[in-house]
Amino acid sequence: MTPNRLEAFSDGVFAIAITLLVLDLHVPQPGSGELGHELLAQWPSYAAYVISFMTIGIIWINHHAAFNRLREVDHSILIWNLLLLLTVGALPFTTSLMAEYLKEGSGERLAAGIYGASFLVMGGVFVGANRQILLKRPQLLKQPMPPAAARRVLRFAALGQIPYVLAVALAAVSPYVTLAICACTAVYYSLPIASRGAGGDRSDAGIA
Amino acid sequence: MTPNRLEAFSDGVFAIAITLLVLDLHVPQPGSGELGHELLAQWPSYAAYVISFMTIGIIWINHHAAFNRLREVDHSILIWNLLLLLTVGALPFTTSLMAEYLKEGSGERLAAGIYGASFLVMGGVFVGANRQILLKRPQLLKQPMPPAAARRVLRFAALGQIPYVLAVALAAVSPYVTLAICACTAVYYSLPIASRGAGGDRSDAGIA
Amino acid sequence: MTPNRLEAFSDGVFAIAITLLVLDLHVPQPGSGELGHELLAQWPSYAAYVISFMTIGIIWINHHAAFNRLREVDHSILIWNLLLLLTVGALPFTTSLMAEYLKEGSGERLAAGIYGASFLVMGGVFVGANRQILLKRPQLLKQPMPPAAARRVLRFAALGQIPYVLAVALAAVSPYVTLAICACTAVYYSLPIASRGAGGDRSDAGIA
Amino acid sequence: MTPNRLEAFSDGVFAIAITLLVLDLHVPQPGSGELGHELLAQWPSYAAYVISFMTIGIIWINHHAAFNRLREVDHSILIWNLLLLLTVGALPFTTSLMAEYLKEGSGERLAAGIYGASFLVMGGVFVGANRQILLKRPQLLKQPMPPAAARRVLRFAALGQIPYVLAVALAAVSPYVTLAICACTAVYYSLPIASRGAGGDRSDAGIA
Repeated sequence: MTPNRLEAFSDGVFAIAITLLVLDLHVPQPGSGELGHELLAQWPSYAAYVISFMTIGIIWINHHAAFNRLREVDHSILIWNLLLLLTVGALPFTTSLMAEYLKEGSGERLAAGIYGASFLVMGGVFVGANRQILLKRPQLLKQPMPPAAARRVLRFAALGQIPYVLAVALAAVSPYVTLAICACTAVYYSLPIASRGAGGDRSDAGIA
Repeated sequence: MTPNRLEAFSDGVFAIAITLLVLDLHVPQPGSGELGHELLAQWPSYAAYVISFMTIGIIWINHHAAFNRLREVDHSILIWNLLLLLTVGALPFTTSLMAEYLKEGSGERLAAGIYGASFLVMGGVFVGANRQILLKRPQLLKQPMPPAAARRVLRFAALGQIPYVLAVALAAVSPYVTLAICACTAVYYSLPIASRGAGGDRSDAGIA
Repeated sequence: MTPNRLEAFSDGVFAIAITLLVLDLHVPQPGSGELGHELLAQWPSYAAYVISFMTIGIIWINHHAAFNRLREVDHSILIWNLLLLLTVGALPFTTSLMAEYLKEGSGERLAAGIYGASFLVMGGVFVGANRQILLKRPQLLKQPMPPAAARRVLRFAALGQIPYVLAVALAAVSPYVTLAICACTAVYYSLPIASRGAGGDRSDAGIA
Repeated sequence: MTPNRLEAFSDGVFAIAITLLVLDLHVPQPGSGELGHELLAQWPSYAAYVISFMTIGIIWINHHAAFNRLREVDHSILIWNLLLLLTVGALPFTTSLMAEYLKEGSGERLAAGIYGASFLVMGGVFVGANRQILLKRPQLLKQPMPPAAARRVLRFAALGQIPYVLAVALAAVSPYVTLAICACTAVYYSLPIASRGAGGDRSDAGIA
């Protein structure tokens, strides 16, 4: 299969997952209180919407950079891509879970931990997919990449997971810390500075 | 990244956001009253569906015109595009909010103000993305555009936000005024006359 | 704009509308009765799912045939296309309405009438879009079509609306008649025979 | 029509159906119990999400392999493709049904049987579509395939349905057996070994 169709299908899944996030924004029940107040009380939902949206968007940018290196894809890469999309597709659920429980007095740490973990797992699968591409199937690349450079790209991608490890660990302290770490990570990768790194390989400098 | 893949992904988000609007049309609960009457009482939902659908559609047309000028996209343009999609993706929520509260005796002005504001913010981000393309990254354009022409396009796009400023401000008077302004704006940009303007640059003559 | 991007966006809307139909199939509430019985009682939902799915699919085929004739699209054609997609996007709502009320003792005729009308309006807009393409913008066609042939195509498309006129009118007699007409129409256009007609112009022989 | 647009539309339906599966993962109602416990109790939903996701993904891979053989598509192939997409589009419903009832004390066998049957029907329609392509429309293939080879591909695809026949039959014994068979089938086709078979025609070695 050419990477083009893999990308078209993946683009679809990314676009749908990112747009389904809006279903977590609920219109307050009329009559349940003053509308302005009700809307403000939902701020965790807005924060989670923005953070998850930007994070999925950045992963999409990285996905393109990683799979665009390929001249052709084989079965193993298709399956790695499916696993990655499976983790992307689950994000509207973990986002909703976090937003819903951040307002509650119980379960909010577990919910935040799961939220951070869902980014961490997605990032881990992305590193795995990248490893499959760069180290296991170098013959499918458009341009050969020396193993040392490949390893540098992978190391850089793996290091990008550190904020999410922290986000999961610190959920035990406070769910707001988790939220803040995920937000800062998304902001960081949105800034121009994030488009450098990994020895000039700008496209891999993203979240995963 | 080539603009093609950016457009494919963006098309996906536009298409999904525009189609998710239908989820705001609710089938009346059987037994809650005479069906014809119940359906008529939902007219704000139909109005909001049509207005939001046409507005998103027109923004999509403008999006194509703006990004089609590019030969290549860089990180900053990708992030501006993500921010734009983030505002597009939120429209099913603000549409639903407006439709739901227009029938209520309280909160309807705030809901209408938020509805108008969501179009205004989307338009503002669109102007920002366009500015990034035309003024900050002229080297990525397919064809060079003189700064004066670029500024004319941007001024024209910014002027296109005036109806939404009015829509937000007049929500304090009546939510129906907001709805009417948004409707008229969508109708105006759907008419043949709207495809002229901005010195013959037809494609930029849209809402944003 | 080239027809390619118009088609990509339209394909997205068609694909989403057709897939959102599944949201009308509800899992019976556990404990509300014997599962097999509950599932059988939902047969109108399954019928409506299949009929709407095939009808949207056939309209998609016709959409391709109609817009593929174009070398380029202008503002008026973009707006006609948006109006068509607006009617397509509303079908999950009218499908759900029909399926829900077919089981009820009141409102079922109105619901069926609206269901048939939503197909009729979609077909009417399709004829209008086709008219815009063939008669008003012949200069945008890839290959010139003599006015007589264009009129034949349009007449044929208009005649294809007759079943839906009947479906709406006979909803007053029985909603099952409406359902049966819509089903037969979808089956007819799925058969090989439907791919002929209109003087060998196979692609226009569809529902609209 | 060229296979490209058929594929683009089909990719959209596959991508949406696969992403809508996440709507079956429900955030537990706050206050209904300890969150960790509530989330663990939902394990059938996670299992069903993963199994259906991978199965749809593998069918998508096979879809590409099957339709990529075509140089052109005719009306009959479009309709077969629509029927296939209709069965794919229904999977979020049967997945939800299975996940919901696996936790219940009644109806769980019927639900599991329907789940297995929905895969079986999808596979059957895929074999039918493949048969239409390879045996009935050989003139539309990019490269001619000898009837014996075509029949081998079809036989191989038909044999791939055996696990689903078992999954349906054994639902009467236990819904967990059905789930396990569907899971094993998805895992098997994800492994490298599954990319061989059918006389080196790797792409057809999938689920259907």
